Amino acid sequence: VILSGGSGTRLWPLSTPDLPKQFVPLFGERSLFDLTLDRLEGLADVAPPIVVTGAAHVGLVQSALTRSGVGDAWVIIEPVGRNTAPATLAAALVADPEDVLVILPADHVITDPAGFRAALLRAAAHASNGRIVTFGVEPTSPHTGYGYIEVGASIEDAFQVERFKEKPDAAEAEHLASDGRHLWNSGMFVVGAAFLLEEAGAHCPQVIEGVTGALPEGKGTLIALDDSFESVEAISIDYAIMERTGNALAIPIDVGWDDVGSFRSLLAVTDRDEAGNHVTGDVLVEDVSGSFIRATSKRLAVAGVKEMVVVETPDGVLVLPLDRSQDVGEISKRVDRG
Amino acid sequence: VILSGGSGTRLWPLSTPDLPKQFVPLFGERSLFDLTLDRLEGLADVAPPIVVTGAAHVGLVQSALTRSGVGDAWVIIEPVGRNTAPATLAAALVADPEDVLVILPADHVITDPAGFRAALLRAAAHASNGRIVTFGVEPTSPHTGYGYIEVGASIEDAFQVERFKEKPDAAEAEHLASDGRHLWNSGMFVVGAAFLLEEAGAHCPQVIEGVTGALPEGKGTLIALDDSFESVEAISIDYAIMERTGNALAIPIDVGWDDVGSFRSLLAVTDRDEAGNHVTGDVLVEDVSGSFIRATSKRLAVAGVKEMVVVETPDGVLVLPLDRSQDVGEISKRVDRG
Repeated sequence: VILSGGSGTRLWPLSTPDLPKQFVPLFGERSLFDLTLDRLEGLADVAPPIVVTGAAHVGLVQSALTRSGVGDAWVIIEPVGRNTAPATLAAALVADPEDVLVILPADHVITDPAGFRAALLRAAAHASNGRIVTFGVEPTSPHTGYGYIEVGASIEDAFQVERFKEKPDAAEAEHLASDGRHLWNSGMFVVGAAFLLEEAGAHCPQVIEGVTGALPEGKGTLIALDDSFESVEAISIDYAIMERTGNALAIPIDVGWDDVGSFRSLLAVTDRDEAGNHVTGDVLVEDVSGSFIRATSKRLAVAGVKEMVVVETPDGVLVLPLDRSQDVGEISKRVDRG
Repeated sequence: VILSGGSGTRLWPLSTPDLPKQFVPLFGERSLFDLTLDRLEGLADVAPPIVVTGAAHVGLVQSALTRSGVGDAWVIIEPVGRNTAPATLAAALVADPEDVLVILPADHVITDPAGFRAALLRAAAHASNGRIVTFGVEPTSPHTGYGYIEVGASIEDAFQVERFKEKPDAAEAEHLASDGRHLWNSGMFVVGAAFLLEEAGAHCPQVIEGVTGALPEGKGTLIALDDSFESVEAISIDYAIMERTGNALAIPIDVGWDDVGSFRSLLAVTDRDEAGNHVTGDVLVEDVSGSFIRATSKRLAVAGVKEMVVVETPDGVLVLPLDRSQDVGEISKRVDRG
């Protein structure tokens, strides 16, 4: 299940409402969406993907699936985003009840796909035993851009999930990243389809009732949720089910995961030249280091700067220091959308 | 006489071969060309201007003249630029021999036009007595972007011109700016038309012969020099005549003159906000100071920088520190002109 919502304001003007982050060709011609499909290659017994996306992005999803040679996917179309619980439950209702679902945001990077696939197999084994398994990442810094999972007792190679924490402020992040009881919330999880629906019936019955009501009668591969979906509660699967059930486990992973939530993250996972720059497009750089420089529609010259973001696209131009990457979402909202 | 040659690489991408610096609307809707006309307003007995320009820019010149309400100018069209001596002599051949010519580059700023007009009257008095009068500016810094005039004995309110020096290196500029014998060469001068032709006959006969041969027979207001103009020596009026005659004078002026040869100069003479920024276009700035920020064709967001140049035009995007303004000419040549 590939969750391809996301407005992608944090990488403006690379990502825009019309071209969210997961569809931007960030790795040569490949996008994060493409890489999300790629990293499952090599797993045995994988059913065709179920993609959940907004109406505006169905064309982008179909192009990406075609480009990756995936001809038999389901695409569930949300009239409006309602967070991860409704999206995931829609996928579970469409899937074969016997299937184990691997739920993956479409816009993350994993630099060790083989390690990730091994972790998936471990998670699938737990899922087959009636568990909802989420992946946590051992914090390496007091990151304020991630949510955190508080874990309890260890169970085999995993931990009991206690509760979820939204993005913390700097002081709380210091605490969470160092107390040994918290993992970064990767937003990826594994669960049996039938079991997820069962848990939803127990813990968020109104959500599953609303989603069921929004599903159309017939079942083509293009499944448009009807407008009643708008009245379904917008809630994450973390809060709707995982925090309420006793069956949630967290598996720590160390596979080079990143949610690419800022230009700083993006620079760290993309190709860089000897000066530490990522440079693409019709660009002249001179005395530039540690910078993310991209032009997609016209000539760009950058000289005498370090650790900067300079991005030109048809949507606009952004110039700011890399250490202000976290401000881009706010800036993109303030930019006059003329 | 308005000399409107100039390729304008030093303000790329604001100025381009298609839109040289003098035609860019830098002061609200007004351009440097417009301001050059404006600053003569208030002088008595001014004949219509003679503009010398390249074939590619005739339309821009005509628009500017119309916009300024000048309906009766001559426009001399050079098939190719040959520096200031041929251009000025062409104007002198077109002008009434009795006229005093005021030769002005089209792309300079003068912040005290009244003071400038007073200096013009003083220069015109000398010109009527058989002098070629150039304007020099007391150096306020060891500027390496200007040429210098070495002056000798004082004659009334002026100085004898000894020789001209091209843009010096930093060490020589230190010397020139402080020895009390050098002025910045403003490139503006005043001379009687008939007298200039006489001096040219004495000091650069081949140049005036070539220019005369390139002038068409009839005399409309649009005067296209023929292709033989290409074989005329490309030489400045400084070297062709002023350095060779005993009749050249330099008048020091203090009228806020600047040749706007870099973004640093431009920022100094344009409107700035409280943070010292010049900001025009569809631009969002946040924590920006002392910077020149302009967008002409799309949205631009700049945050967390100081003393930077960020310019977006249909031709390209430039990002560099203000203190590297002098590198822009070189950069514009290196930028792929696709």
